[in-house]
Amino acid sequence: MTEKALALLKEKKYLQLKQMLKEENPVDIAGILEEMPAEMLLLVYRLLPKELAAEVFAEMDNDQQEILIQAFSDQELQDVLDELYLDDTVDIIEEMPANVVKRILRQTKPEVRKKINEILHYPEDGAGSIMTIEYVDLKKNMTVDEAFSRIRATGVDKETIYTCYVTNADRKLEGLVTVRELLLSPKSAIIGDIMETHVIAASTLDDKEQVANQLKKYDFLALPVVDQENRLVGIVTFDDAMDVLQDESTEDIEMMAAITPTGKPYLKTSTLDIWKKRVPWLLLLMVSATFTGKIIQVYEDALAAQVVLTAFIPMLMDTGGNAGSQSSVTVIRGLSLGEIRMTDIFKIIWKETRVALLCGLTLAIANFAKMMLLDRISFSVSLVVGLTLVVTVAIAKITGGTLPILAKRVGVDPAVMASPFITTVVDALSLIVYFQIASALLPLS
Amino acid sequence: MTEKALALLKEKKYLQLKQMLKEENPVDIAGILEEMPAEMLLLVYRLLPKELAAEVFAEMDNDQQEILIQAFSDQELQDVLDELYLDDTVDIIEEMPANVVKRILRQTKPEVRKKINEILHYPEDGAGSIMTIEYVDLKKNMTVDEAFSRIRATGVDKETIYTCYVTNADRKLEGLVTVRELLLSPKSAIIGDIMETHVIAASTLDDKEQVANQLKKYDFLALPVVDQENRLVGIVTFDDAMDVLQDESTEDIEMMAAITPTGKPYLKTSTLDIWKKRVPWLLLLMVSATFTGKIIQVYEDALAAQVVLTAFIPMLMDTGGNAGSQSSVTVIRGLSLGEIRMTDIFKIIWKETRVALLCGLTLAIANFAKMMLLDRISFSVSLVVGLTLVVTVAIAKITGGTLPILAKRVGVDPAVMASPFITTVVDALSLIVYFQIASALLPLS
Repeated sequence: MTEKALALLKEKKYLQLKQMLKEENPVDIAGILEEMPAEMLLLVYRLLPKELAAEVFAEMDNDQQEILIQAFSDQELQDVLDELYLDDTVDIIEEMPANVVKRILRQTKPEVRKKINEILHYPEDGAGSIMTIEYVDLKKNMTVDEAFSRIRATGVDKETIYTCYVTNADRKLEGLVTVRELLLSPKSAIIGDIMETHVIAASTLDDKEQVANQLKKYDFLALPVVDQENRLVGIVTFDDAMDVLQDESTEDIEMMAAITPTGKPYLKTSTLDIWKKRVPWLLLLMVSATFTGKIIQVYEDALAAQVVLTAFIPMLMDTGGNAGSQSSVTVIRGLSLGEIRMTDIFKIIWKETRVALLCGLTLAIANFAKMMLLDRISFSVSLVVGLTLVVTVAIAKITGGTLPILAKRVGVDPAVMASPFITTVVDALSLIVYFQIASALLPLS
Repeated sequence: MTEKALALLKEKKYLQLKQMLKEENPVDIAGILEEMPAEMLLLVYRLLPKELAAEVFAEMDNDQQEILIQAFSDQELQDVLDELYLDDTVDIIEEMPANVVKRILRQTKPEVRKKINEILHYPEDGAGSIMTIEYVDLKKNMTVDEAFSRIRATGVDKETIYTCYVTNADRKLEGLVTVRELLLSPKSAIIGDIMETHVIAASTLDDKEQVANQLKKYDFLALPVVDQENRLVGIVTFDDAMDVLQDESTEDIEMMAAITPTGKPYLKTSTLDIWKKRVPWLLLLMVSATFTGKIIQVYEDALAAQVVLTAFIPMLMDTGGNAGSQSSVTVIRGLSLGEIRMTDIFKIIWKETRVALLCGLTLAIANFAKMMLLDRISFSVSLVVGLTLVVTVAIAKITGGTLPILAKRVGVDPAVMASPFITTVVDALSLIVYFQIASALLPLS
């Protein structure tokens, strides 16, 4: 599709290109525009009908939006802003440099500018920051027929009309009614009689991830957002909730791999930015890992006496790290999905202890057999390594299972307690265990 | 809420309990039932009105569904099955033991049984396995008014009526129309004139994750599913797509931590099952890590001559592992989200090389300064460790960035190429680099 568009552009067959684009979904058109050379962008964009153009604009990435805004006439900018939903406008404003923001604000009407400012002031991680302020509000004393007229008159975006909210004169939320219920009710029925009054709502200050999880839990199309006085101020729709959940998973995954989340696709992040998000963690973990080195230095004499012990250090460290990260990652994900609560800590310790013993014994037996039969290592060294495996796996799994919960309890993101951190902690512990067991069972002086 | 319900149950205030439950959302009632003792389950369940009971049943977890089905009379089972959507029935059948499945099938009508069998035969990872077969189908020659009558008559689940599909006499998909468009059109308008004919559809055999990603990309409420002959067979709704995406992230995260995905919440998985999902990876990685040990054995004499080198092995291994997993996890997630394609491999290598040099130099300089100034290690050893850091980070990041793509190319899940695997590979490589640089710069004999 993109190839065809580029070919038409090259041959200057603009009419055909226009016909072709008109039939596509805005998301796909934005995808095609992304592949266009920057100097062609405005030309192709101007081929689109006005309403479609604004929909496409909302789907484009920020770099291209910026190019377009810089190139737009004042009239074009105003046309786009008139068609955009306010939450999309706010999203764009948040990503643009100051001079572009000024231009945008100059082209918006004073009352819209006031609303934009309101939304910009909600906490960044709160429900207020992801809500849509376009929704259908009804009154209790309307009939079903009047409700349909109101929906037609409001005519807002598809995802926002199917659940309508009933508010009183003070804008306080009194109930909700779905278009399905309206369709199944007689036209003369009174909204107040058919509305659902047991409304599950979020507050503007609620954490956006919590709100998205709630929306997912109940399979709602939208969740109303109310302020401190229970006044309806907006709704969070399922598509924004899906984005939040997806972004949340990505952030968790990045944190687990010791990366500060960038919030941008990899290929669109500059080398310097990637470096900035990665190197502080590498430095921190490098410094922590030197403590592990110190432990080896303490036992340097013992190692010199039994150099064979050195060969098993990497295996013990890796196994401990792997066993620990299995547990920590399981618990971190469980916390994110709401499947594990902080009060489950004792259940986790009990479960991890049993799993650790099973895993540790399996590994120790396999390793013992291999060392004795294949590598022809002495019985006592094989025993030391085997015992260390059991103890290390136990320590790793219990540490891995509990640290994320303890982190959450003190207000740290549990995802920090994943593989890299656990590995560093477990490395040190496993070496101490190793040398202690070795000192007890082997002649080391 | 749960506490209140349990208290009412204990005091045998069934009428009050019934009143209370009736007001709640089915998802919340299922949550309350989950906390009830098994022997009370049927009693409380029987307090629910029939239609609500079926909705609650669909939200319960499989263990509890099984308990209830075993306790149901034939009539009760039939009542539930009549109310359930077919895709929910199929989900339940897939999780139940054989004797329960037989009981369920005995209570379903022959034509329903036929449909269940059809759905059960779609590939497990395909769109067919997550689709809903209840949807509203319209004909081209209907008027808007007739369409509304049809919607009212079908009256299916809320999430499935807002997009209606237009099919011809052979059930082939011809277009779609949303309830919003119906509401905004005159009652006498003909569906064929207002329907959208550029329909984005999935095939029953399409991968379900791909379908879910598509639904998310376009912010659709539902995506139609067609068979090989373009006949409409069902729809995938946004809530099921959200579940698929969430499960996909969980699976990726588990694979990245060297765990075979369980598909079950941690606290509901038995110790033995957890052991089975974790221990094969630990064994495999343990065996791989012994190769790292072999490398140390090869250089045993060198190490005996310069025991100080041993102290930096853990730090070098950990740093290499961390640097590599940062890159691999970034690329794995990018592949899952569709932000990175397999053809981007050279872009990735180029970007990772630059990031690696920046990171490696930062770490080497910091470490060199620390070793010289704080630890008072000799210049030549500090230099060896610093150079090793630069080379190790470069190898780690390039390996980490490319292995997931190569894995995908040969049909292996890229998530396997995350931290544990990369760590094992990079450990061995970093030790070889370390000892080679040391041999060149230090007197080791």
